[in-house]
Amino acid sequence: MSEKLKGNILVTGANRGIGLALVKQLGETPGEEGHIYACCRDPQGPGAQALRDLSTQCPGKITVVKLDVSDVDSISSAVQTVSRIIGAGGLNLLINNAAINRPETPLSACEKKDMMEVYETNVVGPFLLVKMLLPLLQKAAEMDSTVKGDKMSCSRSAIVNISSLISSIEKCPETFYIKQMYPYRTSKAALNMLSRCLAEDFRRHNILVAAVHPGWVRTAMGGEMASLTPQDSVSGMLSILTSLSNKHSGMLLDWEGNTIPW
Amino acid sequence: MSEKLKGNILVTGANRGIGLALVKQLGETPGEEGHIYACCRDPQGPGAQALRDLSTQCPGKITVVKLDVSDVDSISSAVQTVSRIIGAGGLNLLINNAAINRPETPLSACEKKDMMEVYETNVVGPFLLVKMLLPLLQKAAEMDSTVKGDKMSCSRSAIVNISSLISSIEKCPETFYIKQMYPYRTSKAALNMLSRCLAEDFRRHNILVAAVHPGWVRTAMGGEMASLTPQDSVSGMLSILTSLSNKHSGMLLDWEGNTIPW
Ligand SMILES: NC(=O)c1ccc[n+]([C@@H]2O[C@H](COP(=O)([O-])OP(=O)(O)OC[C@H]3O[C@@H](n4cnc5c(N)ncnc54)[C@H](OP(=O)(O)O)[C@@H]3O)[C@@H](O)[C@H]2O)c1
Ligand SMILES: NC(=O)c1ccc[n+]([C@@H]2O[C@H](COP(=O)([O-])OP(=O)(O)OC[C@H]3O[C@@H](n4cnc5c(N)ncnc54)[C@H](OP(=O)(O)O)[C@@H]3O)[C@@H](O)[C@H]2O)c1
Repeated sequence: MSEKLKGNILVTGANRGIGLALVKQLGETPGEEGHIYACCRDPQGPGAQALRDLSTQCPGKITVVKLDVSDVDSISSAVQTVSRIIGAGGLNLLINNAAINRPETPLSACEKKDMMEVYETNVVGPFLLVKMLLPLLQKAAEMDSTVKGDKMSCSRSAIVNISSLISSIEKCPETFYIKQMYPYRTSKAALNMLSRCLAEDFRRHNILVAAVHPGWVRTAMGGEMASLTPQDSVSGMLSILTSLSNKHSGMLLDWEGNTIPW
Repeated sequence: MSEKLKGNILVTGANRGIGLALVKQLGETPGEEGHIYACCRDPQGPGAQALRDLSTQCPGKITVVKLDVSDVDSISSAVQTVSRIIGAGGLNLLINNAAINRPETPLSACEKKDMMEVYETNVVGPFLLVKMLLPLLQKAAEMDSTVKGDKMSCSRSAIVNISSLISSIEKCPETFYIKQMYPYRTSKAALNMLSRCLAEDFRRHNILVAAVHPGWVRTAMGGEMASLTPQDSVSGMLSILTSLSNKHSGMLLDWEGNTIPW
């Protein structure tokens, strides 16, 4: 990472896996202005110990915020909390990272509940969070004095949706054999569409929107056989994010900057 | 249409619009074996008068079946009804046509409910219907004595999901200006992924799966300004369907046979 991201950054699903690694690397940026809003479902629970420790290690850099993206009221109070702290400032970067999968559920065992719940968390959560954070993202896009005109960037105002190679409809014949994952695949394809729509919609606000595949990463979701550590995935992604500009808005890129077909 | 589709065919949302036109043209096929299961939410209601009339005009060809694709129990009883009538036979073609849109709901007015309900009807309904009809589709694929080996077709055993140009993530920048339609766009992109997954999954059963864009059609959904009559859209689509074979499984085609990018 040559350049660093700056400003106010919100990460969902920040208590473990890729989300935690994101907060760690963003928090290590020395002396930069800005703040990280590290969101998770249960900030006081045992699953957030590592995040609480991190927050202590980076004094004044990280605020842990309670957020369950499948719950409208929770999204609404998280947004209120963040707005209150940010005050007259804006939100520069929203990273929609939280997601679920039901990998052990083939078609024959997959119920309506699985389809609906995975969509709710992976697509509707990000959708509602974007909708409610839009005023803060707009404020960031308008107030950044370091950039002029319509020059978009992840340090000015941006939404990054963590997608997946598995989201690619084109590549489905190459990946379907790994595991069926109907609810996850349909949700991530829908998330790509959401990213692309938001990119069109928010171009007039100078808010950049991109979808990023983190690679196959050693987390609870990726499993132990995965090829990348969360650290390597995240340093790849952050280096890509710092390089994004107008022409990347609406694209799906991997952690190395390669374009993935829809 | 040179050749005709034959066998047992199930159409959802058959009481009006494109679904009704599909049943009409399929019902006009003279003297062919097979039967049409025309499904709709309220077979006795005023909204199904045209379908009831059609069924009377084509004696012995059309059975109207009650089916609300957003309701698991309704799907389950419709499948039971169809199974009972088909008896030892199979289902040759399932056309997932029923869908909803919330066209007048821009991002600012779009609620969780809109996102969830459109997904439920447009994606989860087709998913569950496929899952429950799979034994009948497999039976049709196995029992067709006119075809041998792995030769797939819509007369042997197939699933056709009615998609849309609006489903194309690639083409979103070209279509977004028409209307935002976040819930519809994300649902139809997910439906494309579902089609592609099913195509991979069911290749071993010799069940063909395709997604078809009907064109811009003069229905309640398409509006009065639309360029095609339901009749023209349907005769285009049926002519495409009769020509599909193995190499088309997993594709998204329009009513004229052109490929649409994901
Ligand atoms: N790992 C991979 O190989 C891989 C590959 C492609 C894409 N991805 C994507 O990368 C992102 C992160 O995945 P990961 O590997 O880090 O997964 P992970 O280790 O399973 O972590 C998932 C995170 O999402 C959170 N989460 C789940 N549901 C939530 C909800 N309703 N509200 C708030 N937070 C919720 C979890 O919180 P709890 O602790 O409360 O459950 C956890 O923090 C996901 O979008 C995933 O689809 C991962
Ligand atoms: N018209 C176009 O220009 C256009 C363009 C691209 C794609 N399409 C697609 O073509 C298909 C047909 O559209 P259309 O133009 O004929 O739409 P339409 O005139 O609005 O008809 C929709 C049909 O779906 C049924 N339906 C809705 N929700 C249902 C549910 N939960 N269970 C069962 N049936 C339900 C409706 O039944 P009720 O009468 O009970 O409401 C109606 O029969 C859809 O998949 C649509 O997305 C249309």
